[in-house]
Amino acid sequence: MKNFLLDTLNSVKLGNITPEEAAIKLRAMPFEDINFAKVDTHRKLRNGACEVIYGEGKSAEQISAIVKTLRDSGESGILITRLSKEKAEALSGITYYEDARIGISGERKAPDGIGKILVLTAGTSDISVAEEAAVTAEFLGNEVTRIYDVGVAGLHRLLSYLDDILSASVIVAVAGMEGALASVVGGLSDCPVIAVPTSVGYGASFEGMTALLSMMNSCSSGVSVVNIDNGFGAGYLASMINHMEGKK
Amino acid sequence: MKNFLLDTLNSVKLGNITPEEAAIKLRAMPFEDINFAKVDTHRKLRNGACEVIYGEGKSAEQISAIVKTLRDSGESGILITRLSKEKAEALSGITYYEDARIGISGERKAPDGIGKILVLTAGTSDISVAEEAAVTAEFLGNEVTRIYDVGVAGLHRLLSYLDDILSASVIVAVAGMEGALASVVGGLSDCPVIAVPTSVGYGASFEGMTALLSMMNSCSSGVSVVNIDNGFGAGYLASMINHMEGKK
Amino acid sequence: MKNFLLDTLNSVKLGNITPEEAAIKLRAMPFEDINFAKVDTHRKLRNGACEVIYGEGKSAEQISAIVKTLRDSGESGILITRLSKEKAEALSGITYYEDARIGISGERKAPDGIGKILVLTAGTSDISVAEEAAVTAEFLGNEVTRIYDVGVAGLHRLLSYLDDILSASVIVAVAGMEGALASVVGGLSDCPVIAVPTSVGYGASFEGMTALLSMMNSCSSGVSVVNIDNGFGAGYLASMINHMEGKK
Amino acid sequence: MKNFLLDTLNSVKLGNITPEEAAIKLRAMPFEDINFAKVDTHRKLRNGACEVIYGEGKSAEQISAIVKTLRDSGESGILITRLSKEKAEALSGITYYEDARIGISGERKAPDGIGKILVLTAGTSDISVAEEAAVTAEFLGNEVTRIYDVGVAGLHRLLSYLDDILSASVIVAVAGMEGALASVVGGLSDCPVIAVPTSVGYGASFEGMTALLSMMNSCSSGVSVVNIDNGFGAGYLASMINHMEGKK
Amino acid sequence: MKNFLLDTLNSVKLGNITPEEAAIKLRAMPFEDINFAKVDTHRKLRNGACEVIYGEGKSAEQISAIVKTLRDSGESGILITRLSKEKAEALSGITYYEDARIGISGERKAPDGIGKILVLTAGTSDISVAEEAAVTAEFLGNEVTRIYDVGVAGLHRLLSYLDDILSASVIVAVAGMEGALASVVGGLSDCPVIAVPTSVGYGASFEGMTALLSMMNSCSSGVSVVNIDNGFGAGYLASMINHMEGKK
Amino acid sequence: MKNFLLDTLNSVKLGNITPEEAAIKLRAMPFEDINFAKVDTHRKLRNGACEVIYGEGKSAEQISAIVKTLRDSGESGILITRLSKEKAEALSGITYYEDARIGISGERKAPDGIGKILVLTAGTSDISVAEEAAVTAEFLGNEVTRIYDVGVAGLHRLLSYLDDILSASVIVAVAGMEGALASVVGGLSDCPVIAVPTSVGYGASFEGMTALLSMMNSCSSGVSVVNIDNGFGAGYLASMINHMEGKK
Amino acid sequence: MKNFLLDTLNSVKLGNITPEEAAIKLRAMPFEDINFAKVDTHRKLRNGACEVIYGEGKSAEQISAIVKTLRDSGESGILITRLSKEKAEALSGITYYEDARIGISGERKAPDGIGKILVLTAGTSDISVAEEAAVTAEFLGNEVTRIYDVGVAGLHRLLSYLDDILSASVIVAVAGMEGALASVVGGLSDCPVIAVPTSVGYGASFEGMTALLSMMNSCSSGVSVVNIDNGFGAGYLASMINHMEGKK
Amino acid sequence: MKNFLLDTLNSVKLGNITPEEAAIKLRAMPFEDINFAKVDTHRKLRNGACEVIYGEGKSAEQISAIVKTLRDSGESGILITRLSKEKAEALSGITYYEDARIGISGERKAPDGIGKILVLTAGTSDISVAEEAAVTAEFLGNEVTRIYDVGVAGLHRLLSYLDDILSASVIVAVAGMEGALASVVGGLSDCPVIAVPTSVGYGASFEGMTALLSMMNSCSSGVSVVNIDNGFGAGYLASMINHMEGKK
Repeated sequence: MKNFLLDTLNSVKLGNITPEEAAIKLRAMPFEDINFAKVDTHRKLRNGACEVIYGEGKSAEQISAIVKTLRDSGESGILITRLSKEKAEALSGITYYEDARIGISGERKAPDGIGKILVLTAGTSDISVAEEAAVTAEFLGNEVTRIYDVGVAGLHRLLSYLDDILSASVIVAVAGMEGALASVVGGLSDCPVIAVPTSVGYGASFEGMTALLSMMNSCSSGVSVVNIDNGFGAGYLASMINHMEGKK
Repeated sequence: MKNFLLDTLNSVKLGNITPEEAAIKLRAMPFEDINFAKVDTHRKLRNGACEVIYGEGKSAEQISAIVKTLRDSGESGILITRLSKEKAEALSGITYYEDARIGISGERKAPDGIGKILVLTAGTSDISVAEEAAVTAEFLGNEVTRIYDVGVAGLHRLLSYLDDILSASVIVAVAGMEGALASVVGGLSDCPVIAVPTSVGYGASFEGMTALLSMMNSCSSGVSVVNIDNGFGAGYLASMINHMEGKK
Repeated sequence: MKNFLLDTLNSVKLGNITPEEAAIKLRAMPFEDINFAKVDTHRKLRNGACEVIYGEGKSAEQISAIVKTLRDSGESGILITRLSKEKAEALSGITYYEDARIGISGERKAPDGIGKILVLTAGTSDISVAEEAAVTAEFLGNEVTRIYDVGVAGLHRLLSYLDDILSASVIVAVAGMEGALASVVGGLSDCPVIAVPTSVGYGASFEGMTALLSMMNSCSSGVSVVNIDNGFGAGYLASMINHMEGKK
Repeated sequence: MKNFLLDTLNSVKLGNITPEEAAIKLRAMPFEDINFAKVDTHRKLRNGACEVIYGEGKSAEQISAIVKTLRDSGESGILITRLSKEKAEALSGITYYEDARIGISGERKAPDGIGKILVLTAGTSDISVAEEAAVTAEFLGNEVTRIYDVGVAGLHRLLSYLDDILSASVIVAVAGMEGALASVVGGLSDCPVIAVPTSVGYGASFEGMTALLSMMNSCSSGVSVVNIDNGFGAGYLASMINHMEGKK
Repeated sequence: MKNFLLDTLNSVKLGNITPEEAAIKLRAMPFEDINFAKVDTHRKLRNGACEVIYGEGKSAEQISAIVKTLRDSGESGILITRLSKEKAEALSGITYYEDARIGISGERKAPDGIGKILVLTAGTSDISVAEEAAVTAEFLGNEVTRIYDVGVAGLHRLLSYLDDILSASVIVAVAGMEGALASVVGGLSDCPVIAVPTSVGYGASFEGMTALLSMMNSCSSGVSVVNIDNGFGAGYLASMINHMEGKK
Repeated sequence: MKNFLLDTLNSVKLGNITPEEAAIKLRAMPFEDINFAKVDTHRKLRNGACEVIYGEGKSAEQISAIVKTLRDSGESGILITRLSKEKAEALSGITYYEDARIGISGERKAPDGIGKILVLTAGTSDISVAEEAAVTAEFLGNEVTRIYDVGVAGLHRLLSYLDDILSASVIVAVAGMEGALASVVGGLSDCPVIAVPTSVGYGASFEGMTALLSMMNSCSSGVSVVNIDNGFGAGYLASMINHMEGKK
Repeated sequence: MKNFLLDTLNSVKLGNITPEEAAIKLRAMPFEDINFAKVDTHRKLRNGACEVIYGEGKSAEQISAIVKTLRDSGESGILITRLSKEKAEALSGITYYEDARIGISGERKAPDGIGKILVLTAGTSDISVAEEAAVTAEFLGNEVTRIYDVGVAGLHRLLSYLDDILSASVIVAVAGMEGALASVVGGLSDCPVIAVPTSVGYGASFEGMTALLSMMNSCSSGVSVVNIDNGFGAGYLASMINHMEGKK
Repeated sequence: MKNFLLDTLNSVKLGNITPEEAAIKLRAMPFEDINFAKVDTHRKLRNGACEVIYGEGKSAEQISAIVKTLRDSGESGILITRLSKEKAEALSGITYYEDARIGISGERKAPDGIGKILVLTAGTSDISVAEEAAVTAEFLGNEVTRIYDVGVAGLHRLLSYLDDILSASVIVAVAGMEGALASVVGGLSDCPVIAVPTSVGYGASFEGMTALLSMMNSCSSGVSVVNIDNGFGAGYLASMINHMEGKK
């Protein structure tokens, strides 16, 4: 069974636990209350991924406490996003990926996806967001190909990687400014394209809103969009798609 | 080989065709020019789907001409979206799905996807967009489960379908107003969720923009978003994901 | 009589004071002019609450002067919102609540409301705004239950507190990002829900505007919205509702 | 017990029903599926109000079918909002309030609230939205006072009703254009004020958005806001507040 | 001398006319006042183009009167934009271009520009705006190549016209939706690209605003943008650039 | 004494009326309640102008009733704005100005202002709004000069009226599109300039919002702005300024 | 003669100067070119006011140089706005008004306006902008009454100054948040009201945009609006109106 | 031949290179991969300009490495935009233009354009953006005339440069605030006008968006717009237009 909520409901039904125990279990078990955050120690069971900690706005001490709780509950892999270099240095047992601003506790899964995930960026300023997607996907057990700085203003660069585009399993297209990369790649490829608008640009780029709206209006089929600068979300979804399997 | 453009480039390289022939081929073959629209008769080969005609803004005569050209080139399945009832009645050899505003020429593929696609709506007014997604997915060879009017304001309705949510292969969540359905479903399920904002609502719903922004900010992992009212795009992408297979 | 303005009008009518005195009274009495701010020493009489000082943009000296004027006029309870730790340390006779950024002079009222006020947050980053609401409500004589980090992406967490939701007198739902918490809670409960959008988030959260619009579009009945990050306003209104009594 | 969902969970716990029965009950009982809408026949039990039908976008036939289903399940009072005169005339057994665009099936509750609800409008064009609020509140068992066309541009009009403002239990302030009515009334009264922006105006009123933002920024305490033109939501919430009672 | 204003100033200086005559000349000569519009009969002299009439919002009678005034003053070529078919049929001596919604009185200039102007559209729905640009440019003495329906979602179509793109003197790129055509063409070509956003699209296309912002953010050099649907402005500017000549 | 509210307060003070009478007077006298609108029969006394009726959204019958009430109370001049030709024809005793969409009951005041009011428009499509301003100002006793179609794209037209600009007492500058007229005129003149943005334009004019923002940013001193298409407000304010007199 | 431009044109006409001299005069005389700014030494002649320097973005050295140039050309009064305390201290011969962030070189004119200018603010945070208006108006020869912190949430405060409101010649209403002060004051007074939105507020105040839109929609006649935080513009315009005189 | 992409395609066709060589050439030759940026060493060949480096967000080391790579490939002229003074000082062999924030490696081309490029600004704060345009154009071989601080609020300043306006080959009009300069200049001149909105201003200038929208709505023909603060883009396009030549 994959879902803790359903498990508990079924256990009540089956009489394996008394209602009183179930009530306690429902309220207490799925997470340890460590005051400032409810750490979800069963999330992996529920939706097939490790725990992820959003590092921004949390102190190194808070992150450290959450990591400890998760490790104590047996969690082997923990991903910390939006983690500054300063905080990373204050944590022990963490591998830090500076470009991606990601810290990882534990081992990454061996690649076991359907195919390769291709991460593209339009410019060099988009690389940080792209790395967040790439490192996330690698941690979740995917082989990742990175091709950066292939914006549509220099189409020959992008086209020189046509083989990679055509053989990818899932593509993550990261772009700021006018975000045209998603539409062009969506038209070339025949796999799902996850578009990530970035806050790169100036003037009428409106910190990513122009790229977001542009990607949303892509006339290419197979393109969907995540939030501005949300590299993690793109990497996570790409991994999810790259691990599709029969469920019947 | 999957891609006409690459095929041609390789043929030139291999000397199978002269440069002059290649130039003619590149310009003339991939589509028949019927004046007002370049019909792409090789699109199926290139990205694994049939041809799709966007019906809005085209007259019945124009649609009819495009359909004929496609059929003559051997295309067996044609999907016409945003097709009004009036225009549908003026076309011959078309099966019309009124709720979805879709006309289909040819047969739908037998379901051969990984699992079931689940299409959910928050309210009854979202059904037209949902049907566009569902009929598109069915046509492309997917089994589709429809559960409508299960918005988060009545959570028990949604939760009563937990089995369907947990066993789906891909979920399309269609909602207007505040678009909260996507986040709630994204948190419950462990499969990709494609969120479709709809222009349903009034006042500060801004014809779908509030739902779009809300879905974009979903704190649930695995959620991505397509354009407002873009049921076709969601159904197409859902089918693409539901047909993932190894490429290595 | 509750209202100073009406009192004065009636006194003129009843001849208790001469028109000249009334004019002086109207202009001079309801507040002491201390140059940079008109301190409203009769506000408590007029609308049943103590004086509240908005601390942002005022120096510690200015706040201190206002507090002194209020105390001299007999005001026993004073609430200072948006008060930084630095300024709080410069003030004497103030109890400081750091998370809430609130300073209080005087004693909080004993709880005498109809029931309990429940303050919920979607994430840990929303806690500061929630504390502003909670401390305000407590100061005004309410029993407050705090449940934090129960966003809709992990529905089982929220549902494990169903008892608290169902037994609350008023609920304050604090959330940033897509703000879906308000809709879900509004559908579960049968008491007034005051939604507080927060500026938490990034990208297309637009510093709270997405959450505000989302909450405004809630399809759940009984939900109303206050300004972004306005924890004080939510706590004040919640207290007002929790102290409803017959007036006939 | 107030909540159907909780009831069922408890029944499973208590062993009153088998898990299989519970599953059926959870999915089937709370609403009758009449194809295009899931009619929620237990909503009254769950949150203390009758069923409400949003009439816009539904045909007279659809509305009629939903009303019949509700009546058959024993529902005595049904409110239909956004009901055009044409559809109302096509329904039987409905009392129609043209200004409010509301149809009512069954009897209104006798007034049993704490006090009077005061509904104010800034102009004559806001009356339709105000009537939606007023009729809704009356139907739910409230005494309602209507004072229309008392915008702040003619302050003496508004002040001549100071008694009504001061003696109200809850105030619904309906205004378009700059929406200043909410702030002024919020400053005068000491009861909850529900602000309803309307789409009345032209030019930079942006169909209610200016009034919405203005009300949201009200510097008066005790003011909260519902969606543009959402008279029903305001009336419903006003009734909820006017029926507050002890729960301890 | 090119400029009427400067001419008059110089004439005063040179003493060719008395100040009184100059005052009359300045006020009376450059246009005939025909009550509802000041027809500028000297505009051609001033900036090298014929008179253009914006047809929208003017009745056929008004347009007819303006045309007569212009012809009487010796104007041989008159362009009427945004002219509906109905109004065109009510005018005499006008050649009407239905797709472009342009009426022309008089003869078009023989092509005498530097090279060819290339007008591209992303889709078939953009053709009307593109025709407005093309017909305008032709009227002003340019050879125009039209290539329509070559959006970036099908890159091979666009690339098959690489010769035309590389040999153009000026390019007008017309696109709605995400407007990516301008960036891609700007990257391929080495001539000025005038981007015209169109109001084609739905949902988050916001009637051309997304395309406008996208084009404005183009990372390709040599791209500038005109107003949404402003085919005339693009055609006029393209002609101006295509007629550049030495002035030293 | 100019103000009814102050009058009444003073009368109470002076004992001329009993408090009870004052209460009745305050509530009843300043307006006649004719059900759907509170007609303000004392507005002229209070702020020096006749009564103005906003005709949009009111039926001919409603307007007729309001006019009758005002006439019965002795009002000699009544201005009805946004009055369609159809409604105007249904009213008796009204002089109708079609371009201005204004109906007038009673006589216009003889001009008695300080100087002339100059009303300028950028284009011919702005004339309707300009006429609303001009007719309003004439009715209120001002001499008005109209100069239309003098937008900044043809600066010599505007400059040929420099005498009128320099000798005006107040200028009303009416413009849509980019609204540059206000800045240019503000720089040329040394009198107050009231800028009126109009909803004329297309594409990125956003129905007047671009002109409004542009005028708001005018770098010329002495420029202020009223709502989009608010010709009445501009004419009224211009008259107010043109009738300034010593009050000391 | 008031206008330099017109003077020169007339001089040419009258033969007082040769065209060559006129050309030199036109280009050289009205301003001294001091490299980074064209100091307009004749502006006072042209539109009746002293020179104003916008201090933001200019260094103390640059300001000093401009002031010197103006003084050398005989300018007796110079106003420097947006001047930080640091820069002010680096300038000699300047009187600095810290609240208003204004520096003045030379003497203020003796008050010679029609009546008093009343400057109101809604809150204490609006005082800086209000002082910019007040000091500007005083410098230009006006008597100014300041009444601060009289927002509409405490209506009795505002009403206690009714005499000042009714006797003002021009009113400047400065407010952030919802900006309701302008509408209320506009309804009470019968003189021109210049509304100044301020960037005070948080959340949905959008740095003054909500106040701007709200004031723009004021339903009170006689209200016009200047840019956000533009105290100078309001003070300048108020002075212009307060110095109206007959020109016939 | 001008285009590397086309060259390669033709070489394959002509058999000058084997397909394998072509593939390598296509992927490897057009740029040197130096890890963080793909330096495009053939861009000059492709579109007639030197390489441009966008300095913002790149470290001095990264810029230095790119410059070296370009020089090594034989590039004689390199333009670095958005280069801070600090970084410029860390680079060797660079001429730095502080106002323009541009660094140049190599020599500027001798002017060989059709005529002069005129760069205008409305105010002194726009000079930095204008210098970016001017220095770019000079580097690319154009004679540039600079006229700054000639905004439309002081029209006589602008008109005193009428000769320069009328004799320019291309005009770059740089303005913030309301951006009216573009329309006025567009109306006066008969050459292409490139409008550059700047982020100069405050309040409702929205960091350049108001100027951008205003310029976009210019009613003058021949005006097109580039991104906010995009001086480089304007200078580059101006040079492109100023170097137009016959291609037939």
